[in-house]
Amino acid sequence: MSKQRTEINAVGREVLTEINSINHVPFKGVGKHVPQGRKAAPPLRSCRDYPGDGDKRVESIKAALQKCGIKDGMTISSHHHLRNGDYVPNMIFDAAAELGIKDLRWFPSASFPIHAPIVDHLESGVIHHIEGSMNGPLGNYCSQGKMRGTAILRSHGGRYQAVQDGEVHIDIAVISAPCADPFGNANGLRGPAACGLLGFALADSQYADRVIVVTDNIEPFPCIPWQIQGNNVDMVVEVDSIGDPSKIVSGTTQLTKSPDRLLIAEMAVQLALEAGIVKEGFSFQAGAGGTSLAFAVFLKEVMKKHNIKARFVRGGSTKYLTDMLEEGLTDFILDGQTFDLDGVRSMRENPAHQDTSPFTSYNYHGKGNFASMLDAVVLGATEVDLDFNANVVTHSDGKLLHGIGGWQNCLFGRNVILPIPLFRDRIPVIVNKVTTLCGPGELIDIIVTERGIAINPKRTDLLKALSGTKLPLRTIKELKDEAEKICGGAPAKPEFGDKIIAAIKWVDGTVIDCVKQVTS
Amino acid sequence: MSKQRTEINAVGREVLTEINSINHVPFKGVGKHVPQGRKAAPPLRSCRDYPGDGDKRVESIKAALQKCGIKDGMTISSHHHLRNGDYVPNMIFDAAAELGIKDLRWFPSASFPIHAPIVDHLESGVIHHIEGSMNGPLGNYCSQGKMRGTAILRSHGGRYQAVQDGEVHIDIAVISAPCADPFGNANGLRGPAACGLLGFALADSQYADRVIVVTDNIEPFPCIPWQIQGNNVDMVVEVDSIGDPSKIVSGTTQLTKSPDRLLIAEMAVQLALEAGIVKEGFSFQAGAGGTSLAFAVFLKEVMKKHNIKARFVRGGSTKYLTDMLEEGLTDFILDGQTFDLDGVRSMRENPAHQDTSPFTSYNYHGKGNFASMLDAVVLGATEVDLDFNANVVTHSDGKLLHGIGGWQNCLFGRNVILPIPLFRDRIPVIVNKVTTLCGPGELIDIIVTERGIAINPKRTDLLKALSGTKLPLRTIKELKDEAEKICGGAPAKPEFGDKIIAAIKWVDGTVIDCVKQVTS
Repeated sequence: MSKQRTEINAVGREVLTEINSINHVPFKGVGKHVPQGRKAAPPLRSCRDYPGDGDKRVESIKAALQKCGIKDGMTISSHHHLRNGDYVPNMIFDAAAELGIKDLRWFPSASFPIHAPIVDHLESGVIHHIEGSMNGPLGNYCSQGKMRGTAILRSHGGRYQAVQDGEVHIDIAVISAPCADPFGNANGLRGPAACGLLGFALADSQYADRVIVVTDNIEPFPCIPWQIQGNNVDMVVEVDSIGDPSKIVSGTTQLTKSPDRLLIAEMAVQLALEAGIVKEGFSFQAGAGGTSLAFAVFLKEVMKKHNIKARFVRGGSTKYLTDMLEEGLTDFILDGQTFDLDGVRSMRENPAHQDTSPFTSYNYHGKGNFASMLDAVVLGATEVDLDFNANVVTHSDGKLLHGIGGWQNCLFGRNVILPIPLFRDRIPVIVNKVTTLCGPGELIDIIVTERGIAINPKRTDLLKALSGTKLPLRTIKELKDEAEKICGGAPAKPEFGDKIIAAIKWVDGTVIDCVKQVTS
Repeated sequence: MSKQRTEINAVGREVLTEINSINHVPFKGVGKHVPQGRKAAPPLRSCRDYPGDGDKRVESIKAALQKCGIKDGMTISSHHHLRNGDYVPNMIFDAAAELGIKDLRWFPSASFPIHAPIVDHLESGVIHHIEGSMNGPLGNYCSQGKMRGTAILRSHGGRYQAVQDGEVHIDIAVISAPCADPFGNANGLRGPAACGLLGFALADSQYADRVIVVTDNIEPFPCIPWQIQGNNVDMVVEVDSIGDPSKIVSGTTQLTKSPDRLLIAEMAVQLALEAGIVKEGFSFQAGAGGTSLAFAVFLKEVMKKHNIKARFVRGGSTKYLTDMLEEGLTDFILDGQTFDLDGVRSMRENPAHQDTSPFTSYNYHGKGNFASMLDAVVLGATEVDLDFNANVVTHSDGKLLHGIGGWQNCLFGRNVILPIPLFRDRIPVIVNKVTTLCGPGELIDIIVTERGIAINPKRTDLLKALSGTKLPLRTIKELKDEAEKICGGAPAKPEFGDKIIAAIKWVDGTVIDCVKQVTS
């Protein structure tokens, strides 16, 4: 391997300036990078080359890949709507292997443990490298420096931006669809693999050279709503099953039972109320983690008590959010993905449960997006440092095990709240410098821990609003010191090799940090 | 004026090869032109340049045009959702005149008699020329050769294609929206000017450099559904009123009372039934003209009698179609525009009444479209000739008084039926050669008149299927001869000057015919 070219970026991180032989721009600061040029321009097509009766079905994924003209070195995309139940990516690369194709770039919106067999295709040379979130085994493989190319991790909005801006050219997009018609109109609302929505595939359907829809549930035209528009689709493939329903959505999503986490969630809600964030017509987004769910539960109680109605809440939706909608505590759910069966049902039945996409919600290279309009966002982190910078992709052992999701995009909300435990497995979460910098501290406002709340000193307005309250306000340094006292010191530094194995993109396409191979 | 460069195209028509100083391709035959290159690529934008709270309102149309950087020679687009009640185009060009701007190209999806004041802006030099349908006074003005530039008429699908393909670059799109939020999400479902949907503005919202939404009915974010996505919108302007509701949609749409027209409609339905076109799961599209409505009424009776349900019907929706939906005679309405208040209501309330756009329905440079999937389409014509070629834009006096609408796009339906009277005002409708060729005869299957039905000889299947029926099958020549016998001869030829005043585009962007100045 030739020497990797790096530079120090605006947040002091050493980042690659060339990744997989393509130049990339180092992070310049929030809102500092001005995109030049024009959006990606897909090739013109003509109806003369598509069946007039609208039936675009071909017999197999392999045949579809051949008709798309699959070649060595191409980029193939897929999407994680079916999460850990998604059968399709393994089918794609098995077919590519049968066709003798090599050196593909896999561009998933995220990969999951079910995709562990992809390791074989990385080993055999069918896949050159992965650009996209790698949850679990593939992240571990990559962290060990075994992948030939360098991974690039992007937020959901960053993935849309990269495709839209032409930074990532997709040759063939493959979209797993729980429900589709022969023309290619598709949605995630019905069928054995119902997952809610297909928003992560929107950019691919718009900008890829070729688009294949794979479904196990064909409906006669028109399949409505067309979350994916058949007018952007080249071919439709029917297979026996696209996924394992039990691993796509869970019937129930679990609240945390940890007394500490419940305390953290309750304090976060109290803070949001006392700071005047929770008020008539407000909006919030909380994820599907145990603490976030607890936040939603406590928030609901507070809203009922104070007779407050939200204008909209953003999902990842769960039963907790759909209950709020059905009980009249919010006018709308604007949903980016459904996490449980109640979410799927509600999106199918309730016009006020609106599906969204990374384009509407997160794309930083658009004419605004929804994320910055949120009054409160509740997010997690694996680490936070004294400058409020946060990490979501690497563990304390340095391994790249998580994706960014919508996390970076949500940092543009008006009040960014990180309810986190002071330590996990006796390892402090607040550190001097985060292992991997995914979010600049200037965008992170509030850290809520079981032993106190730290407000970013930049938010003098919040500090003032909360000064007379009983909330346990501390400095972040105080919280760090207390955690270290309890845990017996700062966490051990992971041992890294020299090789950079992954780049972390900021929402504007610049490189905010890189991840090195672990050697420990 | 310099000499106009022309060529003879594949249907023998003399057409311009250069229009307003830009080269254009002559029509080569149906499905013969292969588009090259890539879609238009709008400039990249960044959220850094848009308000984080999502409030994009500016104080006036004039201020918005200034912020968009309006300059001499730019292209400004608008849309005809508010039809003859639309106040906004006049407001735009009054503002441009106040700003001293000259030589604009107005690119409306259609113009109506209410836009007659635009003549003043053509005369004063604010507008150089109009590209888009000109119904009534502007068509008359153009036909007299008074416009400085040459008009270009496109079908609804052709307009989408031209914008998508980069043939028409829109500098500033202005979208009249009956309902919008400060972020620019907009629809036509609610408010005093409710018109149903905003599909004609889709291309403009996607491809224009700058997009202004003008509304008289602002809602708090999020305005759902977002028929126009705020993420594509630069600015929002609130005005007192965008249109006159009484001229936007009519409370009732009138069936024809003419016994001849009723007979034509009834025969068309009988033909469709006997030819096996009307069968379980079929689809059809009929417009809002009196004869088309009568077709829908007779069709409904036949469907009920034979217990036949359609899979989908395409609107222009009216009470006649919404009744079919509500009575269970069709699974879906796929609607391109609503023609009456029942259409608006149904689209707002009924998820099976799906709004569509020229992208989904008509764009020929896409991966298929809906038009070719229709079993039957019922269309009008001002003239038909012995080769089944038809005209929809000029009258028998040669004046350009109508737009193409979706007419050309619908010719790709499986069975194209033209129910037309044999003569109008004692002027025969079937002629030797149409004055303006808008649709090639090879795509037109059936002419139904009050004195007989002519089947295109190419449709041997239809001729065979109908041979044993009692339907009055004739040749088109026989129909023409009969009409001329009754009317006392063929219609007088209009008198044209040498100057070409308008070009008629085919669905693939080539020039199928041109229209000359009238001198009579």
